[in-house]
Amino acid sequence: MDLLHLPKHISICEVGPRDGLQNEKVSLSLEQKTELIERSIAAGVKIIEVGSFVSPKAIPSMADTDEVCRRIHKVPGVEYRSLIFNLKGLQRAEAAGLTKAKLTVSASRGHCLANMNKTPEEAVQSFSACVAYAKEHNLTLSGAISTAFGCSIDGIVPFEQVISVAKALYDLGLRELSLSDTTGMAHPVQVYQYCLDIQKMFPDVTWNLHFHNTRGLGLANVLAGMMAGITRFDACFAGLGGCPFAPGASGNIATEDLINMCNEIGVTTGIDIDQYIKIGYDVEKYIGGTRSSSILRAGKCSDIIKNKK
Amino acid sequence: MDLLHLPKHISICEVGPRDGLQNEKVSLSLEQKTELIERSIAAGVKIIEVGSFVSPKAIPSMADTDEVCRRIHKVPGVEYRSLIFNLKGLQRAEAAGLTKAKLTVSASRGHCLANMNKTPEEAVQSFSACVAYAKEHNLTLSGAISTAFGCSIDGIVPFEQVISVAKALYDLGLRELSLSDTTGMAHPVQVYQYCLDIQKMFPDVTWNLHFHNTRGLGLANVLAGMMAGITRFDACFAGLGGCPFAPGASGNIATEDLINMCNEIGVTTGIDIDQYIKIGYDVEKYIGGTRSSSILRAGKCSDIIKNKK
Repeated sequence: MDLLHLPKHISICEVGPRDGLQNEKVSLSLEQKTELIERSIAAGVKIIEVGSFVSPKAIPSMADTDEVCRRIHKVPGVEYRSLIFNLKGLQRAEAAGLTKAKLTVSASRGHCLANMNKTPEEAVQSFSACVAYAKEHNLTLSGAISTAFGCSIDGIVPFEQVISVAKALYDLGLRELSLSDTTGMAHPVQVYQYCLDIQKMFPDVTWNLHFHNTRGLGLANVLAGMMAGITRFDACFAGLGGCPFAPGASGNIATEDLINMCNEIGVTTGIDIDQYIKIGYDVEKYIGGTRSSSILRAGKCSDIIKNKK
Repeated sequence: MDLLHLPKHISICEVGPRDGLQNEKVSLSLEQKTELIERSIAAGVKIIEVGSFVSPKAIPSMADTDEVCRRIHKVPGVEYRSLIFNLKGLQRAEAAGLTKAKLTVSASRGHCLANMNKTPEEAVQSFSACVAYAKEHNLTLSGAISTAFGCSIDGIVPFEQVISVAKALYDLGLRELSLSDTTGMAHPVQVYQYCLDIQKMFPDVTWNLHFHNTRGLGLANVLAGMMAGITRFDACFAGLGGCPFAPGASGNIATEDLINMCNEIGVTTGIDIDQYIKIGYDVEKYIGGTRSSSILRAGKCSDIIKNKK
């Protein structure tokens, strides 16, 4: 463990119900969504992104997030998070019984304009209404910075630009922030350097990392993040996700792949991999295909070892 | 660079013509094999495993390795390597004009018996005839230790067992050795620890690493190896390879994925990624399918950056 300065424990946030399912052509039923969320929690997940409160026209598959939130049996101690872009989203989240929401903004101008029709500065500015509302209504907000490691529209995203957006979110009062590799362009040296720097610059912020496996570097990037002291990582059941800019490319890192790596390197997650593998197979059944999970194809490493003991 | 103590340069050994093609159902023609080898070299590869001299009954797709070796235009400074198990293989390699061969033995008893019908000790013992022949005939031998990180038959392979085989090969006079993750069970902490230890124990040995991406950890394992000071890694065009023990699972790490990672993290390989991507697409055309390359699906990272500058 001490060899690579890895943490003893990490928290995995399951983003499948949001980042995973929003990219699938097949829409899951309310029952299927509810079941997957509840089974993820039962397997040990403590943070889950249940959906997003955005325009149903923009992302039809997330239109029923309100109803999903009302249906799930909420377990104390579990953080049910949603993704929002504005006050309307926050109010929908609140009405659906959630106390936490994630404000999302891109570090790159091109992606932010394409996604929100605002520059990053205008987007963060527009969040102040959410912050005021959250304070009054006792809701917690976190911030996610998309395209933090590169942008398929703008190309290189200078680190200063990422820091500038982080600082703007910090100044709004947010103390939990996430860097997202939306386009699968992050690499381990960049991740390691960024993570050392952001923790020095914002010592009272809780940082999360969100990686895609687009170029096969997902788990290498998690490893680099862990080595730099980060302990919160997003992942997605069955490796759903995809990248709209690279058809056929891998999606988010698969939750079961991340659990397997952690089990092997001796970092605890508190999540049962066998239950998770079953969830993954059912996700593949529901969407009618396989995505980019390694463990669902190869089986977990410890199975081989156990069987031979 | 210095951040993760990475080397400035690594050598990639292309094992596609051997470890990649031997697992494919479609047999490539002599012309196709020759072309892929020559194009790999033209792209900058300096070490290539052109085939194996084993029983044509056991591995029919390698039966024409002799003829492949005779046909390829050999470029000075490039190492053309073959895989052998015994003196007969070495003599075939010599007759085909090769001056280098790789003796292969498994660290685990179960895999060694299944593969060679010998225990690891018996296998190494049997190599002494090759060593004597190589000395007389001015041929160079290297050694590869299969199932070094785990075995699908025996399960855990104790590190002491790996070292014992390495020592036996060393005592035979071999000074270039490879650890192979034949079954895709290696993880980064194990790789890092093993690599620190083997370099301390055998300071005058040149070490190679051979990883499969079976559980999504291929590039994370390479990164761990690099951090421990290893600078020679096997990889396979288009990510061919597969694992007979895990049908549908990923194969060897894809050469183009490894080049892309190295380009991104600033480690030179001397190999042109664009030429390699073209080779990868042609490999997929020849075998009639896709395997486990990320870059052939997503494109290399720097394309996005260049296009937007």
